[in-house]
Amino acid sequence: MATTAVAGVELMRRGANSMSGLPLADVAVPGLAGYEDLVFGGWDVNGQSLAAAAAEHHVLNDNQLAETEGALALVTPWKAVASSAFCRRIGGGNMREMRGHRAAIDAIISDIQQFKVANDLDDVVMINLASTERTPAEGEALRTADGFQRALDQDDPDIGPAMLYAAAAIEAGVAYGNFTPSVAADIPGLTELAERRGVPVAGKDGKTGQTLLKTVLAPAFRARALHVDGWFSTNILGNRDGQALEDPDSLKSKLGTKGNVLDSILGYKVEDHLVDIRYYRPRGDDKEAWDNIDVSGFLGHKMQIKVNFLCKDSVLAAPLVLEIARVLDLARQRGERGPQEQLSLFFKAPMTAGKRAPEHAFHRQERMLADWLGDKAGR
Amino acid sequence: MATTAVAGVELMRRGANSMSGLPLADVAVPGLAGYEDLVFGGWDVNGQSLAAAAAEHHVLNDNQLAETEGALALVTPWKAVASSAFCRRIGGGNMREMRGHRAAIDAIISDIQQFKVANDLDDVVMINLASTERTPAEGEALRTADGFQRALDQDDPDIGPAMLYAAAAIEAGVAYGNFTPSVAADIPGLTELAERRGVPVAGKDGKTGQTLLKTVLAPAFRARALHVDGWFSTNILGNRDGQALEDPDSLKSKLGTKGNVLDSILGYKVEDHLVDIRYYRPRGDDKEAWDNIDVSGFLGHKMQIKVNFLCKDSVLAAPLVLEIARVLDLARQRGERGPQEQLSLFFKAPMTAGKRAPEHAFHRQERMLADWLGDKAGR
Amino acid sequence: MATTAVAGVELMRRGANSMSGLPLADVAVPGLAGYEDLVFGGWDVNGQSLAAAAAEHHVLNDNQLAETEGALALVTPWKAVASSAFCRRIGGGNMREMRGHRAAIDAIISDIQQFKVANDLDDVVMINLASTERTPAEGEALRTADGFQRALDQDDPDIGPAMLYAAAAIEAGVAYGNFTPSVAADIPGLTELAERRGVPVAGKDGKTGQTLLKTVLAPAFRARALHVDGWFSTNILGNRDGQALEDPDSLKSKLGTKGNVLDSILGYKVEDHLVDIRYYRPRGDDKEAWDNIDVSGFLGHKMQIKVNFLCKDSVLAAPLVLEIARVLDLARQRGERGPQEQLSLFFKAPMTAGKRAPEHAFHRQERMLADWLGDKAGR
Amino acid sequence: MATTAVAGVELMRRGANSMSGLPLADVAVPGLAGYEDLVFGGWDVNGQSLAAAAAEHHVLNDNQLAETEGALALVTPWKAVASSAFCRRIGGGNMREMRGHRAAIDAIISDIQQFKVANDLDDVVMINLASTERTPAEGEALRTADGFQRALDQDDPDIGPAMLYAAAAIEAGVAYGNFTPSVAADIPGLTELAERRGVPVAGKDGKTGQTLLKTVLAPAFRARALHVDGWFSTNILGNRDGQALEDPDSLKSKLGTKGNVLDSILGYKVEDHLVDIRYYRPRGDDKEAWDNIDVSGFLGHKMQIKVNFLCKDSVLAAPLVLEIARVLDLARQRGERGPQEQLSLFFKAPMTAGKRAPEHAFHRQERMLADWLGDKAGR
Ligand SMILES: NC(=O)c1ccc[n+]([C@@H]2O[C@H](COP(=O)([O-])OP(=O)(O)OC[C@H]3O[C@@H](n4cnc5c(N)ncnc54)[C@H](O)[C@@H]3O)[C@@H](O)[C@H]2O)c1
Ligand SMILES: NC(=O)c1ccc[n+]([C@@H]2O[C@H](COP(=O)([O-])OP(=O)(O)OC[C@H]3O[C@@H](n4cnc5c(N)ncnc54)[C@H](O)[C@@H]3O)[C@@H](O)[C@H]2O)c1
Ligand SMILES: NC(=O)c1ccc[n+]([C@@H]2O[C@H](COP(=O)([O-])OP(=O)(O)OC[C@H]3O[C@@H](n4cnc5c(N)ncnc54)[C@H](O)[C@@H]3O)[C@@H](O)[C@H]2O)c1
Ligand SMILES: NC(=O)c1ccc[n+]([C@@H]2O[C@H](COP(=O)([O-])OP(=O)(O)OC[C@H]3O[C@@H](n4cnc5c(N)ncnc54)[C@H](O)[C@@H]3O)[C@@H](O)[C@H]2O)c1
Ligand code: NA
Ligand code: NA
Repeated sequence: MATTAVAGVELMRRGANSMSGLPLADVAVPGLAGYEDLVFGGWDVNGQSLAAAAAEHHVLNDNQLAETEGALALVTPWKAVASSAFCRRIGGGNMREMRGHRAAIDAIISDIQQFKVANDLDDVVMINLASTERTPAEGEALRTADGFQRALDQDDPDIGPAMLYAAAAIEAGVAYGNFTPSVAADIPGLTELAERRGVPVAGKDGKTGQTLLKTVLAPAFRARALHVDGWFSTNILGNRDGQALEDPDSLKSKLGTKGNVLDSILGYKVEDHLVDIRYYRPRGDDKEAWDNIDVSGFLGHKMQIKVNFLCKDSVLAAPLVLEIARVLDLARQRGERGPQEQLSLFFKAPMTAGKRAPEHAFHRQERMLADWLGDKAGR
Repeated sequence: MATTAVAGVELMRRGANSMSGLPLADVAVPGLAGYEDLVFGGWDVNGQSLAAAAAEHHVLNDNQLAETEGALALVTPWKAVASSAFCRRIGGGNMREMRGHRAAIDAIISDIQQFKVANDLDDVVMINLASTERTPAEGEALRTADGFQRALDQDDPDIGPAMLYAAAAIEAGVAYGNFTPSVAADIPGLTELAERRGVPVAGKDGKTGQTLLKTVLAPAFRARALHVDGWFSTNILGNRDGQALEDPDSLKSKLGTKGNVLDSILGYKVEDHLVDIRYYRPRGDDKEAWDNIDVSGFLGHKMQIKVNFLCKDSVLAAPLVLEIARVLDLARQRGERGPQEQLSLFFKAPMTAGKRAPEHAFHRQERMLADWLGDKAGR
Repeated sequence: MATTAVAGVELMRRGANSMSGLPLADVAVPGLAGYEDLVFGGWDVNGQSLAAAAAEHHVLNDNQLAETEGALALVTPWKAVASSAFCRRIGGGNMREMRGHRAAIDAIISDIQQFKVANDLDDVVMINLASTERTPAEGEALRTADGFQRALDQDDPDIGPAMLYAAAAIEAGVAYGNFTPSVAADIPGLTELAERRGVPVAGKDGKTGQTLLKTVLAPAFRARALHVDGWFSTNILGNRDGQALEDPDSLKSKLGTKGNVLDSILGYKVEDHLVDIRYYRPRGDDKEAWDNIDVSGFLGHKMQIKVNFLCKDSVLAAPLVLEIARVLDLARQRGERGPQEQLSLFFKAPMTAGKRAPEHAFHRQERMLADWLGDKAGR
Repeated sequence: MATTAVAGVELMRRGANSMSGLPLADVAVPGLAGYEDLVFGGWDVNGQSLAAAAAEHHVLNDNQLAETEGALALVTPWKAVASSAFCRRIGGGNMREMRGHRAAIDAIISDIQQFKVANDLDDVVMINLASTERTPAEGEALRTADGFQRALDQDDPDIGPAMLYAAAAIEAGVAYGNFTPSVAADIPGLTELAERRGVPVAGKDGKTGQTLLKTVLAPAFRARALHVDGWFSTNILGNRDGQALEDPDSLKSKLGTKGNVLDSILGYKVEDHLVDIRYYRPRGDDKEAWDNIDVSGFLGHKMQIKVNFLCKDSVLAAPLVLEIARVLDLARQRGERGPQEQLSLFFKAPMTAGKRAPEHAFHRQERMLADWLGDKAGR
C-alpha cells in the first residue's frame, strides 16, 4: 500500500491529472501541503526497492509500472525494527540488530532526522503501514504512562515494534498516524506523551472497503428504523497482508477493531455480527467483501440486503494515507496535540481524547473533517 | 400499500409493540399525532374492502390477517375519480360517473367533509397512493396557475385524476402528500394555490428501497472521491403496482423521477445510469432490486459494487406514509404552507419552493427533518 | 429434517398433490414403495414428539403445522444411543442407559423388531439423520472387520453411536443409509459385514445445496476448459444442525466430505478451495450459501462467477431421505448387497465398493440411478 | 470476437502453452486440424486491420497486443456484403457496391476461391461472426427452397447479408457455422441446399455465458424436481455487439433464440422467464450477467438462486469459434451433410435435421459431441 501511495504521487508529478480516490483533492485550505510537495522514506523488513516491490504487487498496471520505475528504484527501505514474536508470517532480513527498546527508539529517531536534513524538509509525519502485529498482553506497559516508560527500560517483551516506531515519532515531535490495527500510539503511555509533547496522533486501522460501507449503510437503517437482526461479513484477499492475517493472532487484532462499529452506530447490540477474513490467493490485492444483512421492518417483516464489493485494497487505502499525512501536518502547524478526531472518517477504530466514545457514522465523520478544515469550497 | 398502513395501525392498537420501520416512533414533539389517533378513509377504483384487499396482497402473514380482518372489513373505498387514459392496466368499477373536472373536485371535497364530520376529526391529511399514472402532455394546464384553472373549466384531457384529488385537497385546506410519481400538486398551478391557501404539500414518489440505498451510497462515493463511471439498477416486482408499470407510459413517469437523483448528489453527469423495472409475478409484493455500480479510484483503477436488496415494497412504504401524514398534520398546525422540504428524505423527487434544486443526499435530508422537528430526543 | 420428511408424507396422505422436491415422484418401477406406504419410527436424544419438534423448527408454515399436528403428535422418539464424547453441543435426556456396545446394538435391534411387528411391515430401512458426530481416531476399530468386532467387545471409545446404529441395522438385515457426515457403515468392518449379510448400504452426508451446485457447475467448467483457479464457499445457517457444527470437531468431519469433490470432477487439484460454515441465528433453517469461483479462460483471461443460494435446509433434504429409503428398500428386494453406488447423486461423499473412486459429477450420477432403476418413463 | 480468435492462434504459434478455454484441446482424433494449421481471412464493413481492431477492443492485455500486432496487421477484411436495413447501428465504408443478390453471392464465392488458392488450403470453413441483424419478415424466401431461389432472382429485400454469405458458402461447397442469432443457413431453402450439396452446416447464436449456465443449472433443477417458478436474466455489455443490440430489431432476434431453451429442458412452460440485454459502456467487452431463479421444492416451499457471471464475451466466444471450425472441417472430411447436431453444445438455438426438437441440456449436448468424435481419450 505504501508503494502504491509513493507511485501515485510520482505519476501526478509526471502529469496524471485524475484526482480520483483523493477525498481532499479540491480542498483549498492554507497550509495543506500539495501532493507533489511530499517526500517519502521509511523502514521495511523487506529490503527490496519500491520498484521491485511494485513489480511484485500487481497493483499498478504495466504502463504505470514503467513510468514510475525510475523514481521508485531510488527509494529503498531503511533497516526495520521488527520481531517475529509480533508478526510471524512476514520474513525479510532488512532488520536492525536489536539492542533494546531505548536503542531502537534512538535509531528510529536518527533515521528520521537524517531523512529530514537530507531532503531539507519543513516537517515530517510518520504513518504506520507495517503488517498487522498480534495483540500484545494487557500488562502494565499498556495501561499507564509510567508503566510504559518502565517497560521501555526493562525491554518488556509486551512492547511490539509498532509501539517503538510511535514512541520514536512522538519523542522526535513528529506527527503520527496508525493505518494498521496494531497497538501503537493508542496506549495511554503514548497518548499522554503526545499530549504533553504537543504532537498530533491519529489512527487506527484504515477504513477502506467493507467497514466503510458498514458505517454508511448502518446509519441509514437506523434512520429508517429498520432493525438489524444480523450482519454477516466475509472477506477474501490474497496479498501479503492476507498472508499475515493467516496467523490467528494477527487476525484476532484485525477483527478486534471491526466488532463494536455496528453497535455504536445502531444504539443496540447486534448479537449475530460475524466477520471472517480468509487468505485466498486468486484474489491477490483485489480484496473482495460479501455482506449479508438481515433487517426487520414494519410489523416485524424480514428483509435482506447483500453487498458484494470487488475492491482493490491498496487502491482504496493509498490515497487515504496521503490525506492522513497532509491533515496531520496541518494539525501540527495549527498547534494541535494528541488524538485528532477529525480524522475519524479514515479509521475503523478512531482514536479519541479521554474516554470519549468514537463517532463511527460515516456522514457525521465527514462533517467533522469538513468543519475542522473550515473548507468553504467543500461540499 | 395503503392497506398495509391501516393494518399496521390496527395491530398497534391491539398491542403489537414493535416499532420497527417507523422512523419517528421515538420522536416526542408537541403536536405530532400518535399513530393510534389516526383514522383512515379513501377512494379506490377497486371496491373491495381493505380486508379483502389484504387477503389478496399476501403482505401480512396469516396471524396478522386474522387479527386485523374485523377492523379492515369496515373500511371500504369511496367511489374513485379515475380515467383509463391515465392508468390503462388498472381496472375496477368503483368509479364516480364523471361530469367534468370541477364536479369531480366538488365530489372529492364533499367526501372529505363527510369523512371529517363522521369521525369528528381535528384535521384531515390526503396522501396519494393510487397506481402510477402516465405523464400528461406539457400543455398550458401544467405550466401556469391561470392555465390550470382554465383547463379545469374546459375539462382539459391533460388533467389526470391525481391532479383533481390534489386540487380538491388544497381547495378544502387539507394538507396533501404525493407518494406516487404521478403529476399532481407539483404543477405550478397547484403549488401556488397551496401557497396562497396556506396548505402544506409534499411529494413525490416514495423513496423506499433501491433509490433509498442510492442516495445513501452515492454521497459516500463522493466523499471518498470514488468516481461513479456507471450505475445499473434493475427491479423485479409482481404486485399490482408492478402490473401498472407494464404500461410503458406509467413506467416512463416512474423512471422519470429516478434519473437526476445521482447527478445532483455526485455533482457530475453519470452517462451510463440505467434503471429498469420489470413485472415478474413470482416476486409478488417482495420487490427485489439489484444494482451494479462501477467506480474508478486512485490512479484510475476500476472497482465494482453489487447491491442486492430483497425488500418488501409495502412493508418499506407503509410506515413512511404514516410519518408523512403526521408531519404534514404538524406542519398545518405550525401554519406552514406550500412544499414541505423537511419531508425530502421520504421522496425520490422532493418538491421544493421556487426553483430550488432538491437535496437528495439521504443523511442531509435526515438532518433537515430533525432540525425542523426540533427533536432533542432524536439522534 | 426427519420431522419434515414425516410431515411431508402425512400431507400427501391428506391430499397435497404437489410432488415438488421428490426426484423419483414419476418413476414407475415395480417394487418401488409408494410414499404413502411408508411408516416412520426412530430414536432421538430429544424426547419431544415430532409435533413439538415441528412447531420449534419453523420449517412448515402455519397451515401445514396445523394439518399434520395430530399425526406427528403420535410419533415420539425411542430412547437414543448417544454419547457427548461424539456430539457435544446436542443435549437431551431421552437416552438409553449404556451398558456397552453389544448391549446397545441388541437394544437397537429389539427396537427395530418391535417396530416391524407393531406396524406389520414388509421390510425396514434405517436412515441416519442424527446430529454430526466428531470424527473418531483412526484406530484398529475403523480399519479392519476383526478390529471392529474386537473393539465392540472391548467397548472401544473410538466407536461412536452412528457406528452402533449401523452395526445393529446390518446385523438385523436392515438396509442402511447415512445422510450425515458421521463415520458409520463406511468403515471396512461394517461394509464387509453388509456384503456378507446381503444388506444394501448407502451414504454419506446428504448433497442438498451448495455441494449440489458445485457438482453441477464444475463438470461444465471442465467441459468448456475453463480452469478453476479458486473456489470460495461460505455457508450461514441457524438451525440445530448449525449449532452442532459450532463444535470444531463436528465441523471438521462436516468439512472433511466437501474437500475432494472438486478435484475429482476437474481432474486437477484446486489449491484455493475454501469452505466455511458459520452458525448465524437469523437464518434459522433457511441455510444460505455464497460461492465465489475464479476461472481463467482463453489466453489466460480471468473471469468470476458468484452463486448465492437462499435455500431451506430441511426442505431440500427431507424428500431426498424419502427417495433414499425407497431405493434401498428396492435394492433389498433385488438382492443387492454392500454399497449402492446408484444412490451417489444424493451424497457429498458417495460410498463405493472396494477402493473405486466415487463419481461426483451430478449428471453422471443422475444417469447411474436412471440406468439402475431401468425407468423407461423417466427422462 | 473474430480478432480475439485470430490473435489467440497467433499467440499459440509464438509458444503460449495454456490451452484454457479450448474444449477440444486434448482430443486426439484423426483428421481434426491443429489450431496452428488454421489460416484466417474474412469480410468486415469496418476496413481496419485486425491489429487496429484489437487495439480498440481492449480484450487482449498490453503484452498480448504487442506480441500479435505484427501478424494481425497483415489481416485486413475484404469488402463486406452489408445492408443498413438489416443492421442499423453498425457503420463502416468497407462495403461491396451491391448489384443484386446473385452478384453478391458470386463475389463472395470468388473471395473464398482466391483465399483458398492464395494460401494453398486443403479446405475452407465459413463462420458468421458479423453483428446481429434484425429478423427479416417471414415471406416466401424464408419458407421454401424454391421460394428462396426466386427471392434471390428478384433481389427480395427480405434476404439479408447473413443469408447471402451462407448461400455463397453452401454453393461453394464450404462448410458453414453461424455463431450469431441472424437468420442464415437455418432457412429451409439453404438447409435443403446444404443437404443436396453435401455441405455440413451448424448454428446458431454462440452459447457462451448466461445461456450456458442456464442449460447447466436447469437440468439439475429438473433432476431434483425443484419447480422453476420464474427465471429473470439481465445482461449488461458495452462492446460493439452491445451497441448493435441497442437497435430494438437486432435485440428482438437476439432475444428470440433465448426463449424456449428453458421450457424444452424443464418439460413445462416457465411463464415468468424474462431476458434483458442493456448497452452499458463501462462494461466494455466484459459482459456481466445476473440471474435470479425462483424455485419451489418439497411442500411448495420457495427458494431462490442468484447467479452473477462476470464474464469476458470474446474470451468465452473465440475458442468456441475455433472448435466449431475444426469440427465442421472434420465433418466435411467424413462426408457429413446438412445440420451437424453434434455441435449443439456451442449454440443457444442448435440447428437440427428435419423438425426434430433440439437438445438443450448441456451435459447431454457434451455427450453428443464426445460420441460423434469417438474420442476415447476424452472424459
Ligand atoms: N490495504 C488496505 O486496504 C488496508 C486497510 C486497513 C488496514 N491495513 C493495514 O495496513 C497494513 C499494510 O497493508 P498492506 O496491504 O500494505 O500489506 P503489505 O504486506 O503489502 O505491506 C506491509 C509491509 O510491512 C512490512 N513490515 C512488516 N513488519 C515490519 C516492521 N516491523 N517494520 C517495517 N516494516 C515491516 C512488510 O515487509 C510489508 O512490506 C496492514 O497492517 C494492514 O492490515 C490495510
Ligand atoms: N410500494 C412502494 O414501495 C412504492 C414506492 C414508491 C412509490 N409507490 C407508488 O405508490 C403507488 C401505490 O403502490 P402500491 O404498491 O400500493 O400499488 P397498488 O396497485 O397495490 O395500489 C394502488 C391502488 O390504487 C388504486 N387506484 C388506481 N387508480 C386510482 C384512482 N384513480 N383513484 C383511486 N384509486 C386508484 C388501485 O385500484 C390500487 O388498489 C404506486 O403509484 C407506486 O408507484 C410505491
Ligand atoms: N439438512 C440438510 O440439508 C443436511 C444436508 C446434509 C447433511 N445433513 C446432516 O443431517 C443431520 C441432521 O440434520 P438436521 O438439520 O435434521 O439437524 P437437527 O439438529 O435438526 O436434527 C438432528 C437430530 O438428531 C438428534 N440426535 C443427536 N444425536 C443423536 C443420537 N446419538 N441418537 C439419536 N438422535 C440424536 C438431535 O437431538 C436432533 O433432533 C446432521 O448430521 C446434518 O449435518 C443435513
Ligand atoms: N461475443 C459473444 O459472447 C457472442 C455470443 C453469442 C453470439 N455472438 C454474436 O456474434 C456476433 C459478433 O459478436 P462480437 O462481440 O464480435 O461483435 P463485434 O461488433 O465486435 O463484431 C461484429 C463485426 O461484424 C462486422 N459486420 C457487421 N455487419 C457486417 C456485414 N454485413 N459483413 C461483414 N461484417 C459485418 C462489424 O463491423 C463488426 O466488426 C454478434 O452477432 C453477436 O451477437 C457473440
Ligand atoms: Na425505491
Ligand atoms: Na449441501
